[in-house]
Formats: sequence, C-alpha cells, structure tokens
Amino acid sequence: MRTNHSPKPENRKAPDVLIRLLEETDVRLNGDRPWDIQVHDSTLYDRILHQGSLGFGESYMDEDWDSECLDETLCKLLGAGLGAKVRGFGKLRFLGLFLRSFLFNRQSRKRAFEVGERHYDIGNDIYAAMLDPTMSYSCGYWKDAADLEQAQLAKLRLICDKLELKPGERLLDIGCGWGGLARFAAQEYGVEVTGITISKEQRRLAQAHCTGLPVSIELMDYRDLSGRFDKVVSVGMFEHVGPKNYPAYFAAAGRVMVTDGLFLLHTIGYNGHPYIPNAWLDKYIFPNGYLPSARQLIQAIEHDFTLEDWHNFGQDYDTTLMAWWKNFDLAWPRFADKYDERFYRMFKFYLNACAGYFRSRHGLLWQLVLSKRDRRAIYRSIR
Amino acid sequence: MRTNHSPKPENRKAPDVLIRLLEETDVRLNGDRPWDIQVHDSTLYDRILHQGSLGFGESYMDEDWDSECLDETLCKLLGAGLGAKVRGFGKLRFLGLFLRSFLFNRQSRKRAFEVGERHYDIGNDIYAAMLDPTMSYSCGYWKDAADLEQAQLAKLRLICDKLELKPGERLLDIGCGWGGLARFAAQEYGVEVTGITISKEQRRLAQAHCTGLPVSIELMDYRDLSGRFDKVVSVGMFEHVGPKNYPAYFAAAGRVMVTDGLFLLHTIGYNGHPYIPNAWLDKYIFPNGYLPSARQLIQAIEHDFTLEDWHNFGQDYDTTLMAWWKNFDLAWPRFADKYDERFYRMFKFYLNACAGYFRSRHGLLWQLVLSKRDRRAIYRSIR
Repeated sequence: MRTNHSPKPENRKAPDVLIRLLEETDVRLNGDRPWDIQVHDSTLYDRILHQGSLGFGESYMDEDWDSECLDETLCKLLGAGLGAKVRGFGKLRFLGLFLRSFLFNRQSRKRAFEVGERHYDIGNDIYAAMLDPTMSYSCGYWKDAADLEQAQLAKLRLICDKLELKPGERLLDIGCGWGGLARFAAQEYGVEVTGITISKEQRRLAQAHCTGLPVSIELMDYRDLSGRFDKVVSVGMFEHVGPKNYPAYFAAAGRVMVTDGLFLLHTIGYNGHPYIPNAWLDKYIFPNGYLPSARQLIQAIEHDFTLEDWHNFGQDYDTTLMAWWKNFDLAWPRFADKYDERFYRMFKFYLNACAGYFRSRHGLLWQLVLSKRDRRAIYRSIR
Repeated sequence: MRTNHSPKPENRKAPDVLIRLLEETDVRLNGDRPWDIQVHDSTLYDRILHQGSLGFGESYMDEDWDSECLDETLCKLLGAGLGAKVRGFGKLRFLGLFLRSFLFNRQSRKRAFEVGERHYDIGNDIYAAMLDPTMSYSCGYWKDAADLEQAQLAKLRLICDKLELKPGERLLDIGCGWGGLARFAAQEYGVEVTGITISKEQRRLAQAHCTGLPVSIELMDYRDLSGRFDKVVSVGMFEHVGPKNYPAYFAAAGRVMVTDGLFLLHTIGYNGHPYIPNAWLDKYIFPNGYLPSARQLIQAIEHDFTLEDWHNFGQDYDTTLMAWWKNFDLAWPRFADKYDERFYRMFKFYLNACAGYFRSRHGLLWQLVLSKRDRRAIYRSIR
C-alpha cells in the first residue's frame, strides 16, 4: 500500500512528552492492539508537535503511520481530553489541555478555498457510491434502522413529522443539497417546496431529482430570502454559516416564516464552548466549517424564537460515517485509477476521524424545533 | 364578594399612558369582554404606575379591580410584550418595554422570608385539596391525559422512563417534596430512592408516604450530598436554586452520579434572557424564586455534562394550573372560615396569573436529560 513513500528511515524514539501524552489515552506507539499507532516514519513526532492536528492528519496521508482501527484510535485520542480523571489533577489537566491543542490547533486558512474547491470537485461519482440512494449527506436516524438507506429515510420522515407537514403547505429548505428532502416531502407529504442552494451543480441535480413535483430550486444566499412559508427546514447547512452570521441566518428564517410556523434546524453541535476548528479538516474537507456550541445557538435564537424541542442523536453520526466509509472502501477499486493513494487515505482519515469524533462525544447531532414567540399552539415533540 | 372593601370612590379617568399601553394588549378598562379589567377603585392606576407588578397584584387582592377571566387577562397583558408587531416600531417598542417593566418591576425583598414562611405555613389541607392524589406540586404531562391525576402519573412515568430506571438502581431525588416521585419510582420501577429536602414538614410527610418501600428521606442541602447514585432527578426544585448557585448545584449532581448515569432536570424556564423576577410573586408566593434562561442552563452544564435531550411542554403548565385553580375554588367553602377573602384572591391571582404566564409563552417547562461527558452509551430520548 505504501506506494508513494520513501524507504523506511531509521526510527527515532518518540519524544517523552508525546509518550506521556499517549499514556493517558490508551493508545500506544507500535503497540499490538488494533487501535495502536504503527509508526512507519518517525518524522511523525515532529509533525505532530509542530503542526498539531494538521501534521497528524497529513502524516497519515503520507503514510508515516497507520492504525488497524483508525476510528477507534481517534476516538481514544479525543476521549482522553474529556475525562474527569484528566481534569481532576493538575498535571493531568495540563496534559489534557495539551492533547486538545494537539488535535485542534488552528492553522492558516489561506489555501482553504482552493482545497475546498478541489474537495467538492471530486465529482458526484464518489458521493453516489458512498451515500444512500436519497443522496443524504448528513446524519441518518438509526433508532429503528438496519442499514444506511433505512436510516436516511427515517431521518427524512422524522423531519417531516416533526414539522407537522400538511398537504398544500409551503416548505422552505435552506441548503437543499441534492434535493433528497425536497423530493421526499413533496412526494410523501404533498407540500410545495422551495429549496435554496449556492451551488449551481447541486441546483442542477436537485432539479433533475425533483422533476414533476411542486419543487423549485433556487440559486440563492439565505440572506436574500423573501416570500412566505409555513415551515422552514435546514439540514446539515448550518455548519457552513459561521457564528458571525448566526443572527442574519435566524433573522432570515424568521422573516419568511408565518406566525404559527415551525423551523427545524438539523446541525452538528460541538459539545462544549467554544468550538476550535480542526486544522486538518478545515484544510482538506470543510474549509471555513464551524460547529455551533449550545450556548451560541441559544444566544442566537433566544430573542426571536421559542425552543420547542432539542433532540440529540450524535452517536448516529458515528454509525452513519462508518456506513459511508464501508461504501467508499468497497467502491474504491472503481475509482483507484482516477484518484491516487493519498486521496484514498485522505478520505479514509476524514470518515474515520469524524466517526471517532462523534463516538468520543465531542461532536453531537442536534435537531432543534423552533417556533416564533407569538405562536400559541401546543407543539408535541416526537422521537 | 367585596366584603372588606370601602364604598366605591369617585372613579378617576385612567392616565393616558396606561390607556395607550392597554391599547396594544387587547385588554380594556371597563370593557365588555370577559378578559377586560373592571375597575372598582381608580387608585389602581397609581398603584400600577408606581409599583408595577406588585401594585397590580396587590390591588387585585384589595379588590380594586376584577376580571371575569383573569388567566386570559394576564395572558393578553403579557403577550403584548412579545409580538413582532410591538417590536417592529419605535413607539410600540417603547410601549412594549414599558409594559414589561410594568409587569415585572423588581422590588425590595426584605419581607420575602417572612411572607414566604407564611405562604408555606398555610398547611397541607389547601395543597391536598388543590393537587392530585400523588401530591405533585409541579407541571403534569397532558399529552394523553384527560385529567390532573392522569397528567401527574404520566409525568412520573415519563421521568422514570427517560431515566431508564432498572430494578435495584439507586435514584437520588433532589428536592423530593412530599415524596410522590420517590414512592412511584420505588413501587413501579423497583429502585432504591434517596430523597433530600430542606423542609422538616416535607420530610415527615414523604417518609409516611413511602412507608415499607426502599426509600430514605434525608434533611439535607444539595451542597452536602455524598454517596453514589445511578440516576439523579430533580423536579420543580431548581426554581429555588438561584443563578449564583447553579455551578454548585450541577457539581453536586455530577459528584454523586456514576459515569454512565443519567440526570433528569425538570424545571420552569424563562423564555428569554435574563429572567426578571416578578415582584408580586416574589413577595406573596415564591420568595427568592428565579427562573433559569436557556442560556444560563447551558452555561452551567456545558463543562461537565452532555445535553442528551431537551423537552419543552410549557403549555401543559397552563392546563395544570387551571386544574389546580378549579380544585382550589371548588374546595374553598371548606376553607373560607380559616382564611380570609384576601387570601382567596391572592391564591386566585397566583394560579391564574401563572396560567396566563405559560399561555403567553413567557414561561416554559423544561425536562433536560444530562449525562456525564464520559458516557459513551447511546441514549434514546422518548416522549
């Protein structure tokens, strides 16, 4: 597998500080458990100590190290930053903080846009192979689901039921992606849907996906929204909004929603405050992504909305990501000619690291149902 | 009814500012709708303008005014402070803010403790007449309930189910009241319960209520808690904690709970930030009560807990309070000799004003399920 890699150099011993850090995490260097890190190139140590999460991820892409069970490696590394054990003692607390910065250092973003375009330009073939038939690129709902497609359909149904969609109602979908929810809501609940996206490519595919249904897909920034809608939904788009724009985002949703309307927000949440973006993810996968903390969300909504319901099913994202990873890995032989080994390892690291992130409970998945403060009707939340 | 009242004095015209304020609320002075205010004594105006909510409530107790439909009067007065219509215009915004201060002025608390003791000393006969057989003095769950007892039993079951109680587990009940939940959980779910209260009278009655069950009721402040519990619950007690003590409160709950435990917090919430205590309620009913805002709760829990679920059923408190009012009013002839007319009007104002408070959506009812950040097990929330 190590096709692009120079011959194994003389392996230096790991620096003491790194060994002590890892002692707290149940991950060992060159240990024999599936989640232990197998070091191929000891430049790894310097890359971690000097570049934090960015160096850790890039050195994985460069095959400096491997793990049989990458998701669990990441989960264990992250989990150590949370435990009461780590917080309880001065020395260990220091290590915990160090570990946190080691995984989450902030880095320059100057190449983010460029890399971001490259990430999204990888084309729909990869996504079609990785995702379920509804092309849902967000967390499924695994409460009663046996596979990915069931989980994504359950998620779509859960959203529509939470919104109490009724035939003839007008639904606005902010960040409609490939139109999976728009299509489902129009077909199954008889609503008229307006989806907005800022991607021409997504618009084209979403329109094709919804042919013959009362669905219109507009190329539009949420700040330019107008019109009047009974219900508003936004799935997996808030992660791209950024905290400075939260007021504008909620103001736009409130402006176009009727007094008795409902607004469902589906977003990844950061379990703590404030979120510190991950440098590797920022550079290679989601440039300028930002996860809201509960505090930031509350502050953004408390003036205009009533919080009707707050549902957390973050661990379902672990399951979803592992299903995506399995699909991606199975389909890889079809793509191996088009993409290189470094791309494969980038995607592997992305999906497994994110799974570990949710498993360690740093990442949560939130569905909030919000109403305008004038709404008097009783809202009964469901699960 | 106006037994203690001097003959009706010459009725002055209401001040312009008051008339203009009321224009925004759909409540009229001496109008002919059930929720209009019938003015018996025009000193009411000065009492409102100089003493805000305290004067408004006390003038009701003194029979300066009446309303056929007191709950709806309060709901409409409160609702006007929320509407987009009121916020949308400069002038109306001013009126809205004025109205808010008019209903929520902060007043001296020096007599609070004295009055509070008087309130709680009214004895159990009133509470027994007003509450359901489980003596639950907190919001019921009316989703599928037809009467108060069903709603309270549904609430108890909801709490136990959300906590995933299993036979043999140890449950801590912080602020156990008259022991209704302790008894229910021990009887129906086979758990061992430790209830704590700071009221000797509540302890005595709760012990009697739980005779023969594995329930121990301790006289203890939550800050002195020790021991080890699988699950922790606190119902309708957090409203007495106060924001300065939120860190100590959650620290205590976290300290005694096992890593995989669950903590259910049932509390009234204030729909906004920050809460401004109501002077009348503070003086006559709940001295030193304080309703958390969502922001305050999040800030208090984000360091140590994961938010697993946030359920809002605030409108069920409207229904609960109206059921209590109906019970109280029906039972009144039995108490009329022991308590005076002013007490009757105080209780009437209390229950109806609070119902209007929840109907107007200033007040919410929250059940939060929290876990320690180390917990990995999947929690499935229910409704």
